[in-house]
Amino acid sequence: MHGKSFAHRSELKHAKRIVVKLGSAVVTRGDECGLALGRLASIVEQKRRNLNGTLHELLRMNIVPIVNTNDAVVPPAEPNSDLQGVISVKDNDSLAARLAVEMKTDLLIVLSDVEGLFDSPPGSDDAKLIDIFYPGDQQSVTFGTKSRVGMGGMEAKVKAALWALQGGTSVVIANGTHPKVSGHVITDIVEGKKVGTFFSEVKPAGPTVEQQGEMARSGGRLLATLEPEQRAEIIHHLADLLTDQRDEILLANKKDLEEAEGRLAAPLLKRLSLSTSKLNSLAIGLRQIAASSQDSVGRVLRRTRIAKDLELEQVTVPIGVLLVIFESRPDCLPQVAALAIASGNGLLLKGGKEASHSNRILHLLTQEALSIHGVKEAVQLVNTREEVEDLCRLDKMIDLIIPRGSSQLVRNIQKAAKGIPVMGHSEGICHMYVDSEASVDKVTRLVRDSKCEYPAACNALETLLIHRDLLRTPLFDQIIDMLRVEQVKIHAGPKFASYLTFSPSEVKSLRTEYGDLELCIEVVDSVQEAIDHIHKYGSSHTDVIVTENEKTAEFFLQHVDSACVFWNASTRFSDGYRFGLGAEVGISTSRIHARGPVGLEGLLTTKWLLRGQDHVVSDFSEHGSLKYLHESLPIPQRNTN
Amino acid sequence: MHGKSFAHRSELKHAKRIVVKLGSAVVTRGDECGLALGRLASIVEQKRRNLNGTLHELLRMNIVPIVNTNDAVVPPAEPNSDLQGVISVKDNDSLAARLAVEMKTDLLIVLSDVEGLFDSPPGSDDAKLIDIFYPGDQQSVTFGTKSRVGMGGMEAKVKAALWALQGGTSVVIANGTHPKVSGHVITDIVEGKKVGTFFSEVKPAGPTVEQQGEMARSGGRLLATLEPEQRAEIIHHLADLLTDQRDEILLANKKDLEEAEGRLAAPLLKRLSLSTSKLNSLAIGLRQIAASSQDSVGRVLRRTRIAKDLELEQVTVPIGVLLVIFESRPDCLPQVAALAIASGNGLLLKGGKEASHSNRILHLLTQEALSIHGVKEAVQLVNTREEVEDLCRLDKMIDLIIPRGSSQLVRNIQKAAKGIPVMGHSEGICHMYVDSEASVDKVTRLVRDSKCEYPAACNALETLLIHRDLLRTPLFDQIIDMLRVEQVKIHAGPKFASYLTFSPSEVKSLRTEYGDLELCIEVVDSVQEAIDHIHKYGSSHTDVIVTENEKTAEFFLQHVDSACVFWNASTRFSDGYRFGLGAEVGISTSRIHARGPVGLEGLLTTKWLLRGQDHVVSDFSEHGSLKYLHESLPIPQRNTN
Repeated sequence: MHGKSFAHRSELKHAKRIVVKLGSAVVTRGDECGLALGRLASIVEQKRRNLNGTLHELLRMNIVPIVNTNDAVVPPAEPNSDLQGVISVKDNDSLAARLAVEMKTDLLIVLSDVEGLFDSPPGSDDAKLIDIFYPGDQQSVTFGTKSRVGMGGMEAKVKAALWALQGGTSVVIANGTHPKVSGHVITDIVEGKKVGTFFSEVKPAGPTVEQQGEMARSGGRLLATLEPEQRAEIIHHLADLLTDQRDEILLANKKDLEEAEGRLAAPLLKRLSLSTSKLNSLAIGLRQIAASSQDSVGRVLRRTRIAKDLELEQVTVPIGVLLVIFESRPDCLPQVAALAIASGNGLLLKGGKEASHSNRILHLLTQEALSIHGVKEAVQLVNTREEVEDLCRLDKMIDLIIPRGSSQLVRNIQKAAKGIPVMGHSEGICHMYVDSEASVDKVTRLVRDSKCEYPAACNALETLLIHRDLLRTPLFDQIIDMLRVEQVKIHAGPKFASYLTFSPSEVKSLRTEYGDLELCIEVVDSVQEAIDHIHKYGSSHTDVIVTENEKTAEFFLQHVDSACVFWNASTRFSDGYRFGLGAEVGISTSRIHARGPVGLEGLLTTKWLLRGQDHVVSDFSEHGSLKYLHESLPIPQRNTN
Repeated sequence: MHGKSFAHRSELKHAKRIVVKLGSAVVTRGDECGLALGRLASIVEQKRRNLNGTLHELLRMNIVPIVNTNDAVVPPAEPNSDLQGVISVKDNDSLAARLAVEMKTDLLIVLSDVEGLFDSPPGSDDAKLIDIFYPGDQQSVTFGTKSRVGMGGMEAKVKAALWALQGGTSVVIANGTHPKVSGHVITDIVEGKKVGTFFSEVKPAGPTVEQQGEMARSGGRLLATLEPEQRAEIIHHLADLLTDQRDEILLANKKDLEEAEGRLAAPLLKRLSLSTSKLNSLAIGLRQIAASSQDSVGRVLRRTRIAKDLELEQVTVPIGVLLVIFESRPDCLPQVAALAIASGNGLLLKGGKEASHSNRILHLLTQEALSIHGVKEAVQLVNTREEVEDLCRLDKMIDLIIPRGSSQLVRNIQKAAKGIPVMGHSEGICHMYVDSEASVDKVTRLVRDSKCEYPAACNALETLLIHRDLLRTPLFDQIIDMLRVEQVKIHAGPKFASYLTFSPSEVKSLRTEYGDLELCIEVVDSVQEAIDHIHKYGSSHTDVIVTENEKTAEFFLQHVDSACVFWNASTRFSDGYRFGLGAEVGISTSRIHARGPVGLEGLLTTKWLLRGQDHVVSDFSEHGSLKYLHESLPIPQRNTN
């Protein structure tokens, strides 16, 4: 492996020999009074060795910590004759580099109190940390830093790093003094996380994810200025390409399937595989999205006459740049792309590694379709080597994240995406409350459809709440019989269990999404108790009451605080298509922005346009000449052929 | 001070003598191979002493680390005769407590690998970490833990803690092994942060903030089920109370002013002070909010016939629980409370310490008004000792945070509020682009109003972009003359500076909100360059074009991607009242949920109500008996007298 440096951060985990160079700012304390033992020890412990044995063990593994003594305030350490190979140096940067290369080291980590390289002088408007630095870029950047280390110090570091790189050693320059990070900075770097600046000789062919974000932003802005018909045309063209280029798509998909065979379980393989019929129905879906896109961007929601010749308009506009993260299923790609195109949003797509061949061709076709109106760059496919966690941190670049996949994926992304809103739901714990005045005929039908039709769906029933009066009635027996026939495993809630002589297994938690032919049954004394139970254990997704009493039903509809509340209808209606929203973006349990099944409008926001002559607010002051009118004006109906 | 334990975490910073007890899980490594030196050293360094001198210095200050040796896998440390007072113990918990009390210690910090005390068995549905534990509660909780330490270990800890507490020593039990926290856990505890479980003998009179959150949630739910007229009544009643109880309010406000005198600057004192006229105009504002509240909650936005007898309705509902954080100005309180009441939301209010007397009485009056419809608890005033940062972490309890105050406050809260959306804007960098076809008469008027009328406002002008062709024209001279008369300090953008022989000071950053009589001027070559500049340096708040060319204007309106985009109108129109939205909640630059000036609807979300007979989705399958109709139904007009 040696002789060639690593091209990507994701390869750093393969480094066999690592040199860690700790700058004086790392090994000394902020108050300049001696060694920062805590920091030092926690850095050393990342390799899980105790302080005493560390040096010996590190040497044995060719990991050499270099203690900087040229500018430290502590007296130079006495040479420890017992530790051959531990070097106390003065010209630290270049020596570290030389040493790393001579030892045929894979990776040199230079820790000091600087974050890495910046592309502009520190403090300037555009100063951004450079994630990957290529030798060829040397002329074009200013070696700014955001710390007290001057430009000179940074230049020496860069020089040394380039020298090491030429010798085949990869380099990362990062901050080793940050209190919240220094305990795991080395581990993070080796795991490929975007910490500091990574020096790479191999410039990847494609753009960086930051460049892709900018392309999606500007491409999206162009897309938004097209006529609705033009956006629809792009989607129709993509639909055509999906069927026209079927053979190529299926060939790429075959490659993915071959590579995945034996490594993926059968259900995952099934989700990964495409077929002619899948492509056909995908094309039909796209044409539906095209149809519903006609009235999305630029719709006037409100018009107000503020004063004479001063008119205000609120119009729909795209949210901006979406990041959609999806697993396995490559058919997600054209679907999501069509939704973004229909709503005029820029899009970053992050698919799974297992579908990379399929995704690549589907993305090429999407860009081909976008080209017909010159907006090819609005949809970007992010390289599979980019970590989802890193993407979730690009809050300046991405306005909304939409995870498409398992609830585990959604949960992980909600955790990682600090600062960027995530649309979706991680849980669907749907309840059905069977009231004392429920109709015998309806209950069984509704429970069966809600639980058994497709138990893995997020809108499937998980907890059945039964009014106490129904216990030991024919209605109750009928439900239990049906569940037995359908082979639904019953878990008893604590109260239900206490009513039974022989109870089924008691639930571990009343807050469980089984996603399978399993159902929790609990007993409640009243509609109020049912509502309280739902508020306490539910996930605000979809909750249903079954009753013939309209008053009780309306009480339930009004008081249950969930995205969807139904009366005498299956939980499974909670779905964008069934709601008649046209294209479905997803189901949101958030209380901000879109809620419940989300159609295209969930990908839109609004802006306010004000058209005046030379209107100033001072004319409207107490002694001014004008008064606010605030008249509602009619909204023009758009021609939707 | 000794003899009485601390009542609140916020007092812990006054602790003079601290005993830190490190459990074996803290001092030994996860792999059970020796001492966790890194962790240990970083814990010790929180007191900023080097490892060698630490024990001596700690002893001198009566801070005694106790190394647990009864169950550790390392051999017991040899007694170090040089260090009198360092104790190696076997029965560690009770000994630590005894020692702490005997030494008249203020605070005993017990660090092990448990998070603290839980109120239910670990893993159960409701298990929550107990923030403050009172001796009287001992019977009612289960001493569950989430770690490998069994119940027995925890019971011993609690027993020891209660023993110490009786002796006048406060106790905190916390986790000292968490890699991201152990470096500053002691500092955090002493600073009053909510880490682990704090033992207190003094039960505060009021509820905990968690209990307040629950009260706001259930109170808000009740509020939402009232009739719109009832909510309006409450607000009217509050408006009456503000004038009726004027004397009491002003008396409380006088107390605040007296206590603040000499400690607050004049402008802050002014913001803090109330007056009869302020209360009167506040009451008028409240009545306006009451009026606009009539059509907020329960408004039907969409009705769809899904199938025969299956009708879907999308209705507006409150968001849930709002946390409003405001500084100085006590008049914020009734205003914000009225907005929450009008929109049926529960509310947690967090005011500044400096206004505590005023806030207390205003909150009492709010609750009095709420009582007329039995929803007193919907609005809660959080104790001033609660830290804003701690509140921003209560993501299970709060649905939306609204900061009301300086942009610094907004930025801090946006940073702290991981996981909870924040409504507002931290920056208002508004631009005005003067096109080559701008009218001479209009420009000066518009610039003056935008920049000079109220320069501290977020919608004031910060950057003037001038088309190159206008340089050295009468129009340009007229603008500069006006700015001189108005004493506006000009900062030149780099391009503008390059055109001038004698340039004013060049801008430090093109992304500056001056909030004062200062203005950046930059030159652009075209409307496109103006748009690019705005996208690069703006804050998406409000941006204006001045031109007589309608085509250019519409191009600008369509392409500028900001919340408010104006043509020939002052930036200062960007305001909820001026837009005719009724009550203003704030101005949002977010792209999710409300954007631009936000009225009451920004405090609302929607839910979906589906009313059926016994509808199941399987009837709509390919071979089913039913077909989806998806007919739009007319929306009933509500009676708004």
